[in-house]
Amino acid sequence: MSDTSVIDGAAELLTKQTSRRRFLRDSAVTAFVAGVATACKPETKTATAAQAPAAGQTGGTMGAHDTAAGSATAAADAMDAMHEKGIKAFPAKTAGKGNQLFAPRMDNGVKVFELTAKKIQWETEPGHFVEAWAYNDQVPGPQIRVREGDRVRLVLHNNLPESTAIHCHGLELPFDQDGVPFITQPPVKPGETYTYEFTAPNPGSHMYHSHHNAAKQVGMGLLGAFVVAPKRPNARHRADVDYVMIINDSYHGYTLNGKGFPATEPIVAKKGQTVRLRYMNEGQMIHPMHLHGMHMTVIARDGWDLASPYKCDTVNVAPGERWDVLVKCTNPGTWALHCHILPHAESEHGMFGMVTALVVQG
Amino acid sequence: MSDTSVIDGAAELLTKQTSRRRFLRDSAVTAFVAGVATACKPETKTATAAQAPAAGQTGGTMGAHDTAAGSATAAADAMDAMHEKGIKAFPAKTAGKGNQLFAPRMDNGVKVFELTAKKIQWETEPGHFVEAWAYNDQVPGPQIRVREGDRVRLVLHNNLPESTAIHCHGLELPFDQDGVPFITQPPVKPGETYTYEFTAPNPGSHMYHSHHNAAKQVGMGLLGAFVVAPKRPNARHRADVDYVMIINDSYHGYTLNGKGFPATEPIVAKKGQTVRLRYMNEGQMIHPMHLHGMHMTVIARDGWDLASPYKCDTVNVAPGERWDVLVKCTNPGTWALHCHILPHAESEHGMFGMVTALVVQG
Amino acid sequence: MSDTSVIDGAAELLTKQTSRRRFLRDSAVTAFVAGVATACKPETKTATAAQAPAAGQTGGTMGAHDTAAGSATAAADAMDAMHEKGIKAFPAKTAGKGNQLFAPRMDNGVKVFELTAKKIQWETEPGHFVEAWAYNDQVPGPQIRVREGDRVRLVLHNNLPESTAIHCHGLELPFDQDGVPFITQPPVKPGETYTYEFTAPNPGSHMYHSHHNAAKQVGMGLLGAFVVAPKRPNARHRADVDYVMIINDSYHGYTLNGKGFPATEPIVAKKGQTVRLRYMNEGQMIHPMHLHGMHMTVIARDGWDLASPYKCDTVNVAPGERWDVLVKCTNPGTWALHCHILPHAESEHGMFGMVTALVVQG
Repeated sequence: MSDTSVIDGAAELLTKQTSRRRFLRDSAVTAFVAGVATACKPETKTATAAQAPAAGQTGGTMGAHDTAAGSATAAADAMDAMHEKGIKAFPAKTAGKGNQLFAPRMDNGVKVFELTAKKIQWETEPGHFVEAWAYNDQVPGPQIRVREGDRVRLVLHNNLPESTAIHCHGLELPFDQDGVPFITQPPVKPGETYTYEFTAPNPGSHMYHSHHNAAKQVGMGLLGAFVVAPKRPNARHRADVDYVMIINDSYHGYTLNGKGFPATEPIVAKKGQTVRLRYMNEGQMIHPMHLHGMHMTVIARDGWDLASPYKCDTVNVAPGERWDVLVKCTNPGTWALHCHILPHAESEHGMFGMVTALVVQG
Repeated sequence: MSDTSVIDGAAELLTKQTSRRRFLRDSAVTAFVAGVATACKPETKTATAAQAPAAGQTGGTMGAHDTAAGSATAAADAMDAMHEKGIKAFPAKTAGKGNQLFAPRMDNGVKVFELTAKKIQWETEPGHFVEAWAYNDQVPGPQIRVREGDRVRLVLHNNLPESTAIHCHGLELPFDQDGVPFITQPPVKPGETYTYEFTAPNPGSHMYHSHHNAAKQVGMGLLGAFVVAPKRPNARHRADVDYVMIINDSYHGYTLNGKGFPATEPIVAKKGQTVRLRYMNEGQMIHPMHLHGMHMTVIARDGWDLASPYKCDTVNVAPGERWDVLVKCTNPGTWALHCHILPHAESEHGMFGMVTALVVQG
Repeated sequence: MSDTSVIDGAAELLTKQTSRRRFLRDSAVTAFVAGVATACKPETKTATAAQAPAAGQTGGTMGAHDTAAGSATAAADAMDAMHEKGIKAFPAKTAGKGNQLFAPRMDNGVKVFELTAKKIQWETEPGHFVEAWAYNDQVPGPQIRVREGDRVRLVLHNNLPESTAIHCHGLELPFDQDGVPFITQPPVKPGETYTYEFTAPNPGSHMYHSHHNAAKQVGMGLLGAFVVAPKRPNARHRADVDYVMIINDSYHGYTLNGKGFPATEPIVAKKGQTVRLRYMNEGQMIHPMHLHGMHMTVIARDGWDLASPYKCDTVNVAPGERWDVLVKCTNPGTWALHCHILPHAESEHGMFGMVTALVVQG
């Protein structure tokens, strides 16, 4: 599924809902019914009944109450308008897209990935630009996917004003390929090129990132996914959609794959399909990722299959961790998927930051 | 067991201990023996022996030492008095009690829960009042318990100055019952009433809370437990006491079920009984809940039974998570149960916040 | 293996690497090859090729570019020199060593551990002294190791200016030995001695620490490991090296066993050996400990064996938790082992705080 079709699909779905919603609200006599059909019959709203407790609450005279209620309503409407605006903008277009699948160049049987680290401007949400330190102009850097046993070469061009190095986080590499300056290699100076080469070892969801002045360099964007497919995949882990979600929280605010809501990317699947989500935390805080409407089955951590998978709806992802989950998409809808540390996801101005949606098309 | 008898039982137990303690301390020649009988024989304190290292520590003359030791003792006594005062006050009475079991009204086979959201004053610890946004004047809101397959109706009356909505966190509901304004429904405006209706789906320990301006609204108290009992309970999970503990940490300070120590509620069981604790985190930080004296067996997360339960004494509960544990009450005593992020539980003024006790009556 | 030989071994290994590194860098025509032999052949650096994208990046004239590149290089070199200095200093000598194995005095079949709590000066990294509140002049306090069923006596001498008490965290003790002032015992006043005595109960990785004014007293250093060996050890958990790592993060900065990098202690094993790491968190934050080069198999939490062990490379340790892992040392090298909250491990001045290494000698 192309990125464009994903975004268009979700936008269409939300537009349909919004149109129907506007109609329903404008009709003003029946409760809102969501775009996705259900067997459920919400009761009608009864404005009259509701006014009574409101009056009881303020305890003022009816006149004073009317005025207070009027200004409260106006304030509530103003806040709601901000919330609605954000949601209607989702998925918002921004310049630049990170975490794009990285097609390697083949060199005599070796998969070669050229990575150029440099400063760029990065749009995290519409109109909000930040300085980023990026691989190949992407935050996160391009998504590397190889197969266990592949010969892999990473060629790092350092166009930053600082030295750097790449550590493949989670890969059990020979010592001199581990990417820690002054321990396994010299730092890669500004203007220099450095080459790593190894055979892809232990499969799973891994990462690559700077391991030099890393609190800053990783925070600024020098990070990406490094997924090693197993030679013998576990048949129970077959998925129709395989999605990497990299969480970050430092210099660029609260982001999922380098973007904050409403510029985050929805994940789209059809009813009955299975989605594999690979959560990776490159930030400095935990982020308990919560999915609405369906549960997740946790199948792997740090790339290693769990002998005893378990179900949950909230996966607490700590810095450096990777968690793979399967979602069996049984329930149609546009399901919120967000960090449940609420100040990472919503303010009085509406949702922002670590919010996206899993769209299950009925 | 009624709430009153629980509190009175714990108070009596602590009073007994305190009385005996005072006697023992006043007698001044024997070590303190707790109110709960054990086979253990602590040695006597030897004040003379203890003075020697104290003198060695200060290294002053005996006269100077005496003065320094005197003022150090006075300061220590003053601090200890504050600590003792807090513990003697436990469980302290405060106005209002949250998380009370919610008896539904039956309407033609449907269990109806009416929830009125409004601003109240809430006493978190004796004499400390905060503004709360509460369901039915309770923080947490009343505890909803239904059975898998029950038809359930939630009627929300919004008497707040802001719009709101209820999301049933963890329940796999049809899309239009999910409670996310502008995605699954319009916001419920001040003065309005909105109705949710659904069949109770996946069993387990779940929650309900606002999903509109939620960082504020949940932080202010719009939250509660939603427990769905399974049609076929797991016999190994049978418990004599079933206790929901909702953790929160934002606008109202560090609270367990809406109260800070010493106003928190003790959990009381008899020796040999099994207690099921359902931890739920509605806050913005992790809270590793630590039990003294006995271990916990973790049996479920987010309402889903674990295929492979495990034992521990510290359960790290992240925002949005629910963890169910069993405690086999083999060890009589008043066992501290607290968040092990120590600044959430104790200051120089004594214990506060996220501290309570599991009382095992011998 | 004595402490001295561990440190000397690691120092020697790093010195060898540094010497070879200096040679390799000075030769300036070939990439750095680490001291540990591998089959990997890094490509040579091509400085000419690298200059081109650098020029493209700045977009200035060649003259201006040269000047800018020159000052960028100087700044990078200055930063790198700080990073290198820290790494070359590892493992740095400091006064005092915590967590030393505590040999008990035997008294009629009872293992007696005398603990004196007092204020000391503690060197966390070279030249950086802090006030510590310590047991027996060590931070962490001396490491207690007993066997399940042993009779144990802890004699606490309080030479602090405050009252205190010892709680054995994780041990299921009789109530009056639990160490919580005003609940299970009176506080132990300045100058007093207090004695605990019990039979070592549930085996595993536990801790002892103050439970009075504990946010301060534990933060200042009143803590230590309390490991209870099982009567019947699990044969699959046999290890050649058994290492306790206590994590702390409050008054003394980010420390592992009381020291910050480069004064942290490397863990040393030979290729083919198995290392058992016992992580214990006595701090106030989570610390996801990440190991390079090899995975960890998590076998126990809070001292309790897991029925279903799992593999990972990052273990998120929350306050109060203990996690036991096995590392099968298959991969020779000096492997970084650090908290993956990067600001706990690295700044622009180089690595610091929660960083050490697992040295696998080939």
